[in-house]
Amino acid sequence: MKKISLTGIKPTGILHIGNYFGAIKPALELAREYDARYFIADYHSLNTVKDPKEMETNIREVAAGWLAAGLDPEKVIFYRQSSIPEIFELTTFLMAFTAKGLMNRAHAYKAAVQDNTEKENDPDAGINMGLYTYPVLMAADILIFDSDVVPVGKDQVQHVEMAQDIAQAINFNYKKELLKIPEASIQEDVAVVPGLDGRKMSKSYNNTIPMFVPEKQLRKLIMRIVTNSQGVDEPKDPEASQIYLLYKLFATKEEQDALAKRYREGGMGWGEAKEELFRVMNRELTPLRNRFEEIISDTDKLNEILARGTERARPIAAATVARLRKAAGIG
Amino acid sequence: MKKISLTGIKPTGILHIGNYFGAIKPALELAREYDARYFIADYHSLNTVKDPKEMETNIREVAAGWLAAGLDPEKVIFYRQSSIPEIFELTTFLMAFTAKGLMNRAHAYKAAVQDNTEKENDPDAGINMGLYTYPVLMAADILIFDSDVVPVGKDQVQHVEMAQDIAQAINFNYKKELLKIPEASIQEDVAVVPGLDGRKMSKSYNNTIPMFVPEKQLRKLIMRIVTNSQGVDEPKDPEASQIYLLYKLFATKEEQDALAKRYREGGMGWGEAKEELFRVMNRELTPLRNRFEEIISDTDKLNEILARGTERARPIAAATVARLRKAAGIG
Repeated sequence: MKKISLTGIKPTGILHIGNYFGAIKPALELAREYDARYFIADYHSLNTVKDPKEMETNIREVAAGWLAAGLDPEKVIFYRQSSIPEIFELTTFLMAFTAKGLMNRAHAYKAAVQDNTEKENDPDAGINMGLYTYPVLMAADILIFDSDVVPVGKDQVQHVEMAQDIAQAINFNYKKELLKIPEASIQEDVAVVPGLDGRKMSKSYNNTIPMFVPEKQLRKLIMRIVTNSQGVDEPKDPEASQIYLLYKLFATKEEQDALAKRYREGGMGWGEAKEELFRVMNRELTPLRNRFEEIISDTDKLNEILARGTERARPIAAATVARLRKAAGIG
Repeated sequence: MKKISLTGIKPTGILHIGNYFGAIKPALELAREYDARYFIADYHSLNTVKDPKEMETNIREVAAGWLAAGLDPEKVIFYRQSSIPEIFELTTFLMAFTAKGLMNRAHAYKAAVQDNTEKENDPDAGINMGLYTYPVLMAADILIFDSDVVPVGKDQVQHVEMAQDIAQAINFNYKKELLKIPEASIQEDVAVVPGLDGRKMSKSYNNTIPMFVPEKQLRKLIMRIVTNSQGVDEPKDPEASQIYLLYKLFATKEEQDALAKRYREGGMGWGEAKEELFRVMNRELTPLRNRFEEIISDTDKLNEILARGTERARPIAAATVARLRKAAGIG
């Protein structure tokens, strides 16, 4: 039997090609090796997204985005966190076995406290209980589906460790392997995608290329990529150019070599390089964009896909909660 | 339409007559004036009860106890917290609108921290997240059933105030009266029942008379009531005698007057007073004890009663959660 992997997807805003290469593609690769499960963590985002329109749009766009990017809902389980009520019951259960001291050590919480302290605010100013208890909800997300492996970035390893701690406390108390102890799988060599300004592509830098942007806008964005002042004739270093670094993500090996050669030879201006980048990028993104448009415009179908995911996920979740209730004498 | 009252019942150990007069009787009175709802807070007790046998027994005994004491499951709604999954989803929802600072001010948490500080422990030593987030779960208990009135002791008023705060934050954010703002109704003149040693009857003093104790044991317990060394002939002050104070709870006005007269006249020893107390106490407790035995011995029937309560409670809970999800764009 294949091991189970779990990937959480936070529905916050438009997906960009940094997400595509840094998160979506590696996560979709998991389906080859694992019984892969993916969920949209909509209740996590309630901690920051308090506007209903934004919430609804984010959920639909992220769902359609992952589907367009190749998530096959027939082969993997794809569901919304909010459609699995057992997750919230498990969260309450886990609370009773989670030391408060453990939460105090959570990176995100500590960073918020430090930020407050530096500003001479109350240490807990502006911190809501959703943020503070986030690791418990995340532990429930993980533990409820008997996940073996949780692929995470380095900054998220702590969350998996907390899920381990809590699960072990429960198994120890009831002297039974009630919850599977999950392992973090650290994604080391994830592609770092440069943004329009050369820094890492990130929503917070406002330097992104959205995945499903229309063709015209895509060209415009590419034309905005910051370059140096080297003239057309000068030979250029491909590896120092974010145009080339982006190109490598979309071009074939042959195309990469050919463009690198033109960089080194001189005689090619930045505008020409950008046109070539646009060409390969648009080539890969066009079918994704079309698929995205098709999915996002058919709300019923999208809801149906998610409902089917829920149907497959809930019996697993219900079994976990039933197991725990029985062990705890809550019956 | 009647206003809605909500009473939470913590399933911790055998009910005693201190519970009966101090909590159960006044709570059952609510059904006259209110659309009264009662729930067994089993997930709350998971914070302290980690033994499954104890948990199961506590739940069954407290359910049977309240039914034996007169709770009419046809006239009121009586359910287990753990059978309403919507409560846990609402808890997660509320977390996103609960300032951590609010939790830091909760009495029970502050007392635990003070206790740790006095012992020179880490302030959060031994405190689990269940205790710390208890007020949020309690807010969910209250808010999910559109409760108007929550009868509480003075030490619990803060919990209702927290539920108000959280509900107001949500209503304000979504610009809609999504959650009813509950009111605390403070139970001022609740009977204080003296225990066997003259102190307030309390499990922690180990001075209780269990409600459903068999007749023989009831007599034995009454015979253990601590008295002073006044001789048989001496006139005695009834109001200074816990035998008489207990007697008042079970005897008619005429019986009370008659026994008070005998106290004041002298010529009655403590043993005789105890016999008279046993007589009236046993008179009131015998039908309750019989009912309790009948209920507790028929597990199927008890489960059926609680299942019917769940059936009536869940649509109300589901409506509240659906209202909030829609408002939040979680749909």
